[in-house]
Amino acid sequence: MPFKSYLEALNKEFENHKYGENPAELYEPISYIMSLGGKRLRPLLTLMSANLWLYNWQKVLKPAMAVEVFHNFTLMHDDIMDQAPLRRGQQTVHEKWNTNTAILSGDVMLVAAYELLGFAEDRHFKLVVKRFNKTAAEVCEGQQLDMVFATKADVKKEDYIEMIRLKTSVLLGFAMELGGILADADEDSVRLLNEIGVNLGLGFQLNDDILDVYADPEKFGKQVGGDIIENKKTWLLLDAIEKAKGTEDGKKLEAWLKKKKFDATEKVEAIRGIYDKFEIRAEAEAEAKKYFEKAAEALNKLAVSEDKKVLIRSFAEQLEKREN
Amino acid sequence: MPFKSYLEALNKEFENHKYGENPAELYEPISYIMSLGGKRLRPLLTLMSANLWLYNWQKVLKPAMAVEVFHNFTLMHDDIMDQAPLRRGQQTVHEKWNTNTAILSGDVMLVAAYELLGFAEDRHFKLVVKRFNKTAAEVCEGQQLDMVFATKADVKKEDYIEMIRLKTSVLLGFAMELGGILADADEDSVRLLNEIGVNLGLGFQLNDDILDVYADPEKFGKQVGGDIIENKKTWLLLDAIEKAKGTEDGKKLEAWLKKKKFDATEKVEAIRGIYDKFEIRAEAEAEAKKYFEKAAEALNKLAVSEDKKVLIRSFAEQLEKREN
Repeated sequence: MPFKSYLEALNKEFENHKYGENPAELYEPISYIMSLGGKRLRPLLTLMSANLWLYNWQKVLKPAMAVEVFHNFTLMHDDIMDQAPLRRGQQTVHEKWNTNTAILSGDVMLVAAYELLGFAEDRHFKLVVKRFNKTAAEVCEGQQLDMVFATKADVKKEDYIEMIRLKTSVLLGFAMELGGILADADEDSVRLLNEIGVNLGLGFQLNDDILDVYADPEKFGKQVGGDIIENKKTWLLLDAIEKAKGTEDGKKLEAWLKKKKFDATEKVEAIRGIYDKFEIRAEAEAEAKKYFEKAAEALNKLAVSEDKKVLIRSFAEQLEKREN
Repeated sequence: MPFKSYLEALNKEFENHKYGENPAELYEPISYIMSLGGKRLRPLLTLMSANLWLYNWQKVLKPAMAVEVFHNFTLMHDDIMDQAPLRRGQQTVHEKWNTNTAILSGDVMLVAAYELLGFAEDRHFKLVVKRFNKTAAEVCEGQQLDMVFATKADVKKEDYIEMIRLKTSVLLGFAMELGGILADADEDSVRLLNEIGVNLGLGFQLNDDILDVYADPEKFGKQVGGDIIENKKTWLLLDAIEKAKGTEDGKKLEAWLKKKKFDATEKVEAIRGIYDKFEIRAEAEAEAKKYFEKAAEALNKLAVSEDKKVLIRSFAEQLEKREN
């Protein structure tokens, strides 16, 4: 199964990769956060995309890693901003070390991502960096919007979609596009790969928000209801506010959002009850499905033989049906 | 006078440059910190270096700006780490906005620096990014060492020199090297430019440390004695600790460094008094001179006609003799 061989090759490459040595205080946090695991979705998408044209996908491993290193850089800095104590069940870098270390190690990780892109062949390098720059800036814009929304009163569902497009999806788009560029795919295919990735990213993030409310706690691996507890303005909450407006449930929802002191379980159950009443889960699932379908349509258009698309297709299905 | 025309062209280009627009919370701090001024030393060095070979130095303005944007990115993040309230007499970004904004705006500034490097011609781009990556990582290493030294007991003068080489000097080295690369200078010249820049940087930083203790307050523009007040382990302090070891003054110095509560003026005067006794200023000036001389030697070796070197030579002299 090629999927497994991609992942094994990636993990081996990550294990052997040196980000730098001295001072240790700067580089240890990088090895630490990279060792916490994660699904390596993004570099896998790069490898799978490259493999549509390129038999020898091993030669794009290093640039593929750039996407994962960049992703983990954003996690390291986002965790400071969100004051998050845990990441993948382990202490965050700013908790284990301190905030200054997390700022500075993050900075050097961003540089490390560019270093890894430097393993692209010369003829691809300028385009790769140009597209990466654009993507990286958009991810920062998305994070800023996310913080702005936390205190903004009138966030709309469309605003939320635009925020997650920037914060999460464009990086999946870039990951796939990168594979295409490195495999010398034609421009149309590269554009389609980006479209597939962005739509997978949107569906992925919406699923994440649904799982945060409805996951099986035993499979989920983190606290169910976390978004509800902290009033996170996800698509589900925004949809519920919209649907319940002017009703008794709307008032109840308002009241829960304003409460400073509450029992967490009680709040999660109450708000989930309101979601259920207005069938928010089904609406959110339909919204997520829309993006997975767009991704599938773009994949259909890709001028590559059907047997080569099988892997990406099954990967997308796994993303759609995941339970954690 | 070409020096003035470089600066005017740079400032005009900075004024017109758009870093991005939305969300405003992300991009306004960039315009703000860039508008605080500063001497623009680094991009000036790039333009002057390019002009040794390239008549039309205007075409390297954008990549030259990358160095200044990167420098200001490091200031934005360093100010968070140092909890500095002021930068060039104005509020720092994390004070005027907040820490999260300063982290994230800084991140996108680092990306903006790479975007500006993208204005280099295609044939130079890969080398430019490779050298920039190396430099950027070293600057982070220097900042980390600086923080480590703050709480480390046995810092040596050589350690300090290595720290400022990384934190400050390699960027001046890169700035000059960049000018050479963009002007298609030969490899030997590019290497010499780097050497000139690094040594100017070391001399520059040592002068900074001397000025912090001995500047004319009216010309200096910031508080004289700031380093002494916060026990900053500069070359001067490390030299004084070494020279005064085992003497009565050594004990007095120790005592001042340990004092939690003190009158700032009294501390500055007392420690300056010890410096004077051991002729620390003259020693530090001799040390700085050593690096300015190395820079001059490397400039002498540069295979460029003498009339073209005049400007860099006078610039280096200004750096050596500056009073603020």
